[in-house]
Amino acid sequence: MQFAMIGLGKMGGNMVRRLRRAGIDVAGYDRDAQVVDGLVQDCAMVGATSVEDAVSKLSAPRIVWLMVPSGEATESQIKALAPMLSKGDIIIDGGNSNYKDSQRHGAWLAEHGIGFMDAGTSGGVWGLDNGYCLMVGAAPAVAKTVEPFLKALAPAPDTGWSHVGPVGSGHFTKMIHNGIEYGMMQALAEGLDLLKGKKEFDLDLGEVTELWRHGSVVRSWLLDLTAEALKGDQDLKSVAPYVADSGEGRWTVMESVEQGVAAPVLTLALQMRFASQDEEGYGFRLLSLMRNAFGGHAVKAK
Amino acid sequence: MQFAMIGLGKMGGNMVRRLRRAGIDVAGYDRDAQVVDGLVQDCAMVGATSVEDAVSKLSAPRIVWLMVPSGEATESQIKALAPMLSKGDIIIDGGNSNYKDSQRHGAWLAEHGIGFMDAGTSGGVWGLDNGYCLMVGAAPAVAKTVEPFLKALAPAPDTGWSHVGPVGSGHFTKMIHNGIEYGMMQALAEGLDLLKGKKEFDLDLGEVTELWRHGSVVRSWLLDLTAEALKGDQDLKSVAPYVADSGEGRWTVMESVEQGVAAPVLTLALQMRFASQDEEGYGFRLLSLMRNAFGGHAVKAK
Amino acid sequence: MQFAMIGLGKMGGNMVRRLRRAGIDVAGYDRDAQVVDGLVQDCAMVGATSVEDAVSKLSAPRIVWLMVPSGEATESQIKALAPMLSKGDIIIDGGNSNYKDSQRHGAWLAEHGIGFMDAGTSGGVWGLDNGYCLMVGAAPAVAKTVEPFLKALAPAPDTGWSHVGPVGSGHFTKMIHNGIEYGMMQALAEGLDLLKGKKEFDLDLGEVTELWRHGSVVRSWLLDLTAEALKGDQDLKSVAPYVADSGEGRWTVMESVEQGVAAPVLTLALQMRFASQDEEGYGFRLLSLMRNAFGGHAVKAK
Amino acid sequence: MQFAMIGLGKMGGNMVRRLRRAGIDVAGYDRDAQVVDGLVQDCAMVGATSVEDAVSKLSAPRIVWLMVPSGEATESQIKALAPMLSKGDIIIDGGNSNYKDSQRHGAWLAEHGIGFMDAGTSGGVWGLDNGYCLMVGAAPAVAKTVEPFLKALAPAPDTGWSHVGPVGSGHFTKMIHNGIEYGMMQALAEGLDLLKGKKEFDLDLGEVTELWRHGSVVRSWLLDLTAEALKGDQDLKSVAPYVADSGEGRWTVMESVEQGVAAPVLTLALQMRFASQDEEGYGFRLLSLMRNAFGGHAVKAK
Repeated sequence: MQFAMIGLGKMGGNMVRRLRRAGIDVAGYDRDAQVVDGLVQDCAMVGATSVEDAVSKLSAPRIVWLMVPSGEATESQIKALAPMLSKGDIIIDGGNSNYKDSQRHGAWLAEHGIGFMDAGTSGGVWGLDNGYCLMVGAAPAVAKTVEPFLKALAPAPDTGWSHVGPVGSGHFTKMIHNGIEYGMMQALAEGLDLLKGKKEFDLDLGEVTELWRHGSVVRSWLLDLTAEALKGDQDLKSVAPYVADSGEGRWTVMESVEQGVAAPVLTLALQMRFASQDEEGYGFRLLSLMRNAFGGHAVKAK
Repeated sequence: MQFAMIGLGKMGGNMVRRLRRAGIDVAGYDRDAQVVDGLVQDCAMVGATSVEDAVSKLSAPRIVWLMVPSGEATESQIKALAPMLSKGDIIIDGGNSNYKDSQRHGAWLAEHGIGFMDAGTSGGVWGLDNGYCLMVGAAPAVAKTVEPFLKALAPAPDTGWSHVGPVGSGHFTKMIHNGIEYGMMQALAEGLDLLKGKKEFDLDLGEVTELWRHGSVVRSWLLDLTAEALKGDQDLKSVAPYVADSGEGRWTVMESVEQGVAAPVLTLALQMRFASQDEEGYGFRLLSLMRNAFGGHAVKAK
Repeated sequence: MQFAMIGLGKMGGNMVRRLRRAGIDVAGYDRDAQVVDGLVQDCAMVGATSVEDAVSKLSAPRIVWLMVPSGEATESQIKALAPMLSKGDIIIDGGNSNYKDSQRHGAWLAEHGIGFMDAGTSGGVWGLDNGYCLMVGAAPAVAKTVEPFLKALAPAPDTGWSHVGPVGSGHFTKMIHNGIEYGMMQALAEGLDLLKGKKEFDLDLGEVTELWRHGSVVRSWLLDLTAEALKGDQDLKSVAPYVADSGEGRWTVMESVEQGVAAPVLTLALQMRFASQDEEGYGFRLLSLMRNAFGGHAVKAK
Repeated sequence: MQFAMIGLGKMGGNMVRRLRRAGIDVAGYDRDAQVVDGLVQDCAMVGATSVEDAVSKLSAPRIVWLMVPSGEATESQIKALAPMLSKGDIIIDGGNSNYKDSQRHGAWLAEHGIGFMDAGTSGGVWGLDNGYCLMVGAAPAVAKTVEPFLKALAPAPDTGWSHVGPVGSGHFTKMIHNGIEYGMMQALAEGLDLLKGKKEFDLDLGEVTELWRHGSVVRSWLLDLTAEALKGDQDLKSVAPYVADSGEGRWTVMESVEQGVAAPVLTLALQMRFASQDEEGYGFRLLSLMRNAFGGHAVKAK
């Protein structure tokens, strides 16, 4: 057994299941022992009681795939893992790390002779059945070693995974992927908002989105999911008009600024999420005040 | 007496006062008789009991300045006035009419030999003391006739009013002025919102805006007003985060679309006002739902 | 034979072919006689020498599908057709007409007892094989009569066509569809531009887009086409950086303004197309001049 | 003599002149000896042959104002200066440094007992006569010591300078100021572009901008400069449609992303500058290609 998964949450757990379906032996560890037990029973994963225990079950070249939150958690996990590994072993960061962090991690591990791969992983909760889209950055030899596992995780052995470039390029590609995702989502949401706003036509949004799935120019997986979600209640009264955002949407905007390359729609899609999160609306209050100041326009009282 | 003002609200009333300060005789009419009486006592305006009465007090060439809401009210007032006037008389629309309406009104009145001027009027509640910025569209002869009154209304006889072009061009210029105003206001509001968001510096927004009034690149009348407004309470808890919009901001965006000329900032400034007015946030709910659908991300409950 | 197609261009011609594949008899007319002859030979369409001739070949209830440019051409075609038709006959506008025009056309034809359907048609050059996504606005009886033909044109008898609402709602739905299309396209293009701008990774855009087609969140038909197009030359030196736009993108923005519903990303996607069309760059020249005026920053000479 | 200016370019040189007009003795150094000589003759500045020489001419508490490019140059200058100074002396960074750098510089100097002030300085080439708007971050005692010099540089002793908060807050405030400046400039440029695009009115942009300077809502210093610049040639054929950007506009956008506070207009104003700088237009080429791929729309050849 060569492969361990550290972090068995929504993503990591299903990835273990998919590897097991392909007949691959996997050691797995999670801080939550119940999660480990569940996977042991569910798909005969080899359970581990600690990261060290997981590593101890592997034979060289050992491959340890991290599926933990980006930032601090990933950083400290890599730092802790390095002394447990030997020359030729490989750490894969499958989380949503900033590509600059991955470049730093790769360089640091290289000093210790340990290989590193940043594997941008898309597919969400559907990846178990559909496979994961894997954007991989690594040295050629590292990629070669990991290839059999990538083939099992991807939608098909020859599609949906690719070694796109050197260390860092995998997370970079995933970052841009998520930036595009923000833009596409915002485009869809705005269009549907306008459909709903046209009271005189009383359109059924579930019907229209289902219709568009077949033969239209906007057919897409996001549309598939939206059509499915709109089959029930379309008023969404139970859903708050609050849209969270994560690191990659923000980093895409910063990349645009650093490159000096215009990405107005990706940027604006993020800005609109910020607006959705803004409960205070101070900027809007200021605007209302200004209108009052120059034109005597009534201010709407809170 | 040659000049009548129809509509004596915030704008019309103060314009009468400013003309009177310049020693010009003015007949005035408003639907609200108390308003008429007030101006008669306040500045010796000649009060009228109806539009017809106001017109009857004038000698040729009669000049009737309309200061009524754009759209239906202006339209019907012009239709009603035409039969009361004779060849060589002039109607001025000083309101915020769409320039295409003004072109139509001008052409229709021309058929009856009546002159027309569209006078985009800026200055708000401060115009009485500061004078009004007047953007005038008219035939040359019409502009010449009205000139003495424009000189009295403007900040100074030779500045702040201009005959910019043919009928329609006055309201067009005013429309673009308001479009720019939306953009500048939004820029200011966003910047101040970021200043306020920087908790560690605990900046005094009243102090900063006052500071910027002197020697900075962003010094402007909107900044003057903002600095004044922020001298008191800066939290604006009593002001709702709701920003109204009026015709001209919308028409500017439509003009951009019709011309096919990019005006992204003016457009976005309007869109943000729409966002401030959106209490339902359906688009945001949809985005939250989509995130849940593909990634299993928790939806914030309403 | 009940069905005639007027306008046999890229869209109309292929729609005839698809109907013929389903064994449906079709009369067809185009201003270009060679195009008519081609379809007669290609798929045994019944060729017509004029609109009148096409109509004369039909038995009641006659269905005439217009596939001509929106605006003037559609307007005059409908006006010309009406006298040739009788109560119970139906005109379908399958082009990209403004939905307000369609509402007007529908009301006018209804006065003459003629049915009207606005059929927003998506699918482009791929529709012949994939089927067309049809967004249909019509009275229920009209929709019922046309149903067999919609089933043949759509991707499958039960998917990809829908009677979404009354007259006008079909073109409205298609308009919003295209608005979303603009936003999605812009999101994709911006992301790929950032990928290309990251010189250090030297990414293969054909490889990345192909990769994303499988299992990623952004998988979509637009991505499929982009991946295909990037299989060859990726530098696109032979393609001008000029993006045309059509009515529906513009109307979507106007709809946003009329509804007062924010659609910033759809709007901005259109604005960027305008920017791409702007060879003069006057706004940018002004900005350069302003920078020089206040800061003495050098102006880049043309 | 307490005060030295290091860096005598467009900004530093005029600031020396303004201090000299107020009767304040100033030592000055620039890498270009001719520039030093010029100021010695022009305003009796005390010329220095090196930074060390300039410092040697001062008596405690010594105040050294840096007016050098932000980033590397400022960083190395501060590092070089520190050993020449003693406890109680003060370094002022009047350039456009990132506020986080200034916080770092302030903390580092504090370890050596040297005071630090970040003085965001606005006013451009007009500052000599109008005074400079100074946004100052510093410890209270430092601000007190520097006050007489700020009063001389500002438009008036009691306006146009302010100690807004701790170290870093001065450059932060200046950064936001520039962000707003970008937004206001873009708003103005877009509006004027639409005015120019309205061929039927053939408006004189110099006349309209001059008009708006008096009594309008958009009156502002940027408008003053624009009106002046448009008095000559309005076609701007000699100016390239290329708009440079500097650090502060970019940092403002990053601040918005870091705070998670929407600043869409400030952001978009920067993005449009990027678009103006993009000679390749790869994103636009991609869009043109996509349109061709799905709709068979002709691609405009380069």
